[in-house]
Amino acid sequence: MSRLCLIGVGHIGGSLALAGKKAGLFSKVTGVDVDPDNLEKALSLGLIEEALPLAEAINGSDLVVLAVPVNVMVNLIPQVLDLVDDQLVTEVGSTKTAILKSIAQHPKRKQFVASHPMAGTEFSGPESAQANLFTGKTCVLVDTADSDPEKVKQLENVYSEINMRLVYLDSESHDLHAAYVSHISHISSFALALTVLAKEKDENQIFQLASGGFSSTVRLAKSSPDMWIPIFEQNRDNVLDVLDEHISTLSRFRSLLIKRDFKTFRHLIEEANQIKKILKT
Amino acid sequence: MSRLCLIGVGHIGGSLALAGKKAGLFSKVTGVDVDPDNLEKALSLGLIEEALPLAEAINGSDLVVLAVPVNVMVNLIPQVLDLVDDQLVTEVGSTKTAILKSIAQHPKRKQFVASHPMAGTEFSGPESAQANLFTGKTCVLVDTADSDPEKVKQLENVYSEINMRLVYLDSESHDLHAAYVSHISHISSFALALTVLAKEKDENQIFQLASGGFSSTVRLAKSSPDMWIPIFEQNRDNVLDVLDEHISTLSRFRSLLIKRDFKTFRHLIEEANQIKKILKT
Repeated sequence: MSRLCLIGVGHIGGSLALAGKKAGLFSKVTGVDVDPDNLEKALSLGLIEEALPLAEAINGSDLVVLAVPVNVMVNLIPQVLDLVDDQLVTEVGSTKTAILKSIAQHPKRKQFVASHPMAGTEFSGPESAQANLFTGKTCVLVDTADSDPEKVKQLENVYSEINMRLVYLDSESHDLHAAYVSHISHISSFALALTVLAKEKDENQIFQLASGGFSSTVRLAKSSPDMWIPIFEQNRDNVLDVLDEHISTLSRFRSLLIKRDFKTFRHLIEEANQIKKILKT
Repeated sequence: MSRLCLIGVGHIGGSLALAGKKAGLFSKVTGVDVDPDNLEKALSLGLIEEALPLAEAINGSDLVVLAVPVNVMVNLIPQVLDLVDDQLVTEVGSTKTAILKSIAQHPKRKQFVASHPMAGTEFSGPESAQANLFTGKTCVLVDTADSDPEKVKQLENVYSEINMRLVYLDSESHDLHAAYVSHISHISSFALALTVLAKEKDENQIFQLASGGFSSTVRLAKSSPDMWIPIFEQNRDNVLDVLDEHISTLSRFRSLLIKRDFKTFRHLIEEANQIKKILKT
């Protein structure tokens, strides 16, 4: 059992605290957050046992987890590494290249292990924390060769105990894959929501007609800009490439509709159906 | 209790048979389907009690429901109306204008009521039928002024008994709204699946990284082309308009990324977040 210093007591951080306590990993969680409201909620929801300023919280911990927006991460991780003794430090952000560049030369770099538990939802804040958020999901460990093998092992143990599957990638591959399997889905949902909202001024009408299919494709449009703008900033080049490809695929469907070429349209749907092999549920 | 003649024993038809029997509406369901395999499955799954050729099945029924792809619907509904005595006839297709045009002059038009229970999923076939598919969902009744009020009342009773909310639209409004809240979501999912499949040749890698967000935005890409091609054919003009708007919204995000205008990008996300008011879950 170890003492966790949790920096950022929101959806992912709060869920990790709950999951780790349930698995008997953490004896105590100390929360750090710029927002006093979040700390109060996290205390009353039992996500954390105490709230302390950064240096004090780090001082009494065995393990430090940063779960803040990725723009904050870039500035905060070097400060955290300056303050730690020999604790394991990790962060759970959705981009890696910029973050890892910010500490490449830090003398305590080896105590740091970058991780991305891919389990977020469209919700945010301490009140959305769930103990079982990570169960059966994938966690990517990134550039582990740059970390102390003992620290890597310690972090692997944390994620394994909360029932995550581990995958290993270098930071550039991580950011490219994340653009494809997560970031573009968010842009697509934001755009779909805007398209429909612009058309349908009578909100009740949408609400009544919106079927399960619609809810599913736009649910990510509820996601927080505080989290997502920094992701799009840091992963801008990859996201742009994927967005270009997505627009070009949609434009192909558009041309086929214009030409009424439903034979080719059918072939494309059959090709898209191959996603069944990958997404079983 | 009435005897249902069900033409098309797939996902929606089969679910309607199960839901209606559970609600005590149907004493017997007779299935008609061009595919003998479907009929056999429907019999063994208990969706239908017997399978008969079209004329015989209609002959022994009080209520006829067509649940076939919308291109088949257009040709089959006039034939069915030719064969009925004084039964209520309805169909459950995702487009209405072309279908209603095909019977506008039919002497038995008033026995027909067009309906669209908006509850489909990405699954198809008798094995995907579920008794609770419709619970709490919306059913649109279309151009009811062209139908006998008694027949409308009879159909309202069927959908109310299986716990659907009723909404009334004319056929052109229906097809326009359906393009926005359903058809474009499918094109977006097909395109997203193709974009990702084209990039990620290593399928296992996607499977491992694909998070809940990705599964949710692409799940509709599993949908059957037999059902969807005819919908896109019949609702081509509306779908094209919505697709144009969607591509233009995505292109706007693209320009903002290129210009690194994350301030405007944030405003658009905040605007998209308004979908929260509409989609509560």
